[in-house]
Amino acid sequence: MTGSAAPAALDRLSLNQETVRQWSLPDLANGCARAGVRGVGLWRAPVREYGVAAAARLVRDAGLRVTSLCRGGFFTAVDPGERAAALDDNRAALDEAAALGTGTLVLVSGGLPAGSRDLPGARERVADALAELAPYAVERGVRLAIEPLHPMYAADRCVVSTLAQALDLAERFPADQVGVVVDTYHLWWDDTVGRQIERAGGGDAGGTAGTRIAAFQLADWITPLPEGALLGRGQLGDGAVDLRWFRERVEAAGYRGPIEVEIFNPALWARDGAEVLAEVVDRFRTHVVR
Amino acid sequence: MTGSAAPAALDRLSLNQETVRQWSLPDLANGCARAGVRGVGLWRAPVREYGVAAAARLVRDAGLRVTSLCRGGFFTAVDPGERAAALDDNRAALDEAAALGTGTLVLVSGGLPAGSRDLPGARERVADALAELAPYAVERGVRLAIEPLHPMYAADRCVVSTLAQALDLAERFPADQVGVVVDTYHLWWDDTVGRQIERAGGGDAGGTAGTRIAAFQLADWITPLPEGALLGRGQLGDGAVDLRWFRERVEAAGYRGPIEVEIFNPALWARDGAEVLAEVVDRFRTHVVR
Repeated sequence: MTGSAAPAALDRLSLNQETVRQWSLPDLANGCARAGVRGVGLWRAPVREYGVAAAARLVRDAGLRVTSLCRGGFFTAVDPGERAAALDDNRAALDEAAALGTGTLVLVSGGLPAGSRDLPGARERVADALAELAPYAVERGVRLAIEPLHPMYAADRCVVSTLAQALDLAERFPADQVGVVVDTYHLWWDDTVGRQIERAGGGDAGGTAGTRIAAFQLADWITPLPEGALLGRGQLGDGAVDLRWFRERVEAAGYRGPIEVEIFNPALWARDGAEVLAEVVDRFRTHVVR
Repeated sequence: MTGSAAPAALDRLSLNQETVRQWSLPDLANGCARAGVRGVGLWRAPVREYGVAAAARLVRDAGLRVTSLCRGGFFTAVDPGERAAALDDNRAALDEAAALGTGTLVLVSGGLPAGSRDLPGARERVADALAELAPYAVERGVRLAIEPLHPMYAADRCVVSTLAQALDLAERFPADQVGVVVDTYHLWWDDTVGRQIERAGGGDAGGTAGTRIAAFQLADWITPLPEGALLGRGQLGDGAVDLRWFRERVEAAGYRGPIEVEIFNPALWARDGAEVLAEVVDRFRTHVVR
């Protein structure tokens, strides 16, 4: 059983580059190719630093597929100038995604503007931005993927905190234009998430055009949280999340795409990248696909 | 307007003793009496250290009412011995609440047992514990008040993360036996909380015996979170929470009880207690009741 699951596992596994931040893009391309991992999730800053076209070539030459680009978003500014700048930046992100050959741009909505307490207003500005960007995304062949972040980021990073909210936004648009990200780290605590994953698959709507799930990302939940709560994600299997349950739910909702491992954790970054990737592959087999 | 609101404000304001942890119980009693604050929320550890009967007398002699006792709960152990010990401890907490003259014991459910990933199972054990304790609580004249904590505490502290979940549990019991705590710090991010507060008032059920809201607690949400995420609550008005909106919602749901200010923040503890309380009163007038 294990033997036969292993190749399938590697077919679907994608390594988000932030999991091995210690690796340069060439390290990442070589390391994944050597380990038999076929997909990578990339971030805009290192890609732009390396050069978008060069990064696209590097990854393609290594036989890798870019499964997502992180990230656009930050749509909640009230100031018209800031808002226009955010939309321009998101158009650039869509261009970059297209150049990298990925169909998925991950969007983090943005938090409350300084001094504001108006969560509903901020959420509505996210919807407005999606409406402005959707036609441009369609032209580039890229789907906008709304990522709900854990509620602990609602004030300063992302006013979209649950999968239900992300779907409320996404469903204003066709499923092939706006989807959602299911990230176990952000959603594991929510007793309604199974129902919402089913909804994302079209189970509630009865026959929309395929699943809304544009990306499926994994990290485990460990405590205590570090200061700032940003870099405390756990290696697969080290924490409280039933990762296999999530995989089974997204598959039941029709998702057959890559499974991206995205762990922000300085303890992983301090180690040898190849060793970290080998551990990810091992944990993925034990806790996710087996 | 301000002038007429002020006495009413002080009538309803209760100071949770953890907001001024630098104060002993006598400091607290004297300080509140001097400031014209009529209610206090107490914690078990300092009360037991001082002596339950002596604490009850001290507070009563200062003309104060105990608005809640924190806290019972921690119901999620699987081990039968640990479970029996937790129930015994909760019976002791109910005795203490009765001795202090408060009708509200705040319950924090407990997190996942070490190594477990079974959130639904843990939540079901909370329901079982409530069923065991409810008759004892009724005899003591104390209502069990389930407090949903922020989802960032789901693994290690409280598997009840939303008001909806707390109500799902509470509604298995009569409203006068099991209620819920609405704490702005834990619930502010949730786009369904307004609807759930309405549900807590009986709006959904159409005519239950009064509101399920057993306590209403205030703290503001500020960032960045400190390491461990426990002691980062904000003074009223310093953060992202629309406190007035919450007060109006719980009142619309029929809640007329005390409004307890419970802020865990070392910066407040480092200051003079009377100065902190004066600031709380001022902020309460500006951000909550006006």
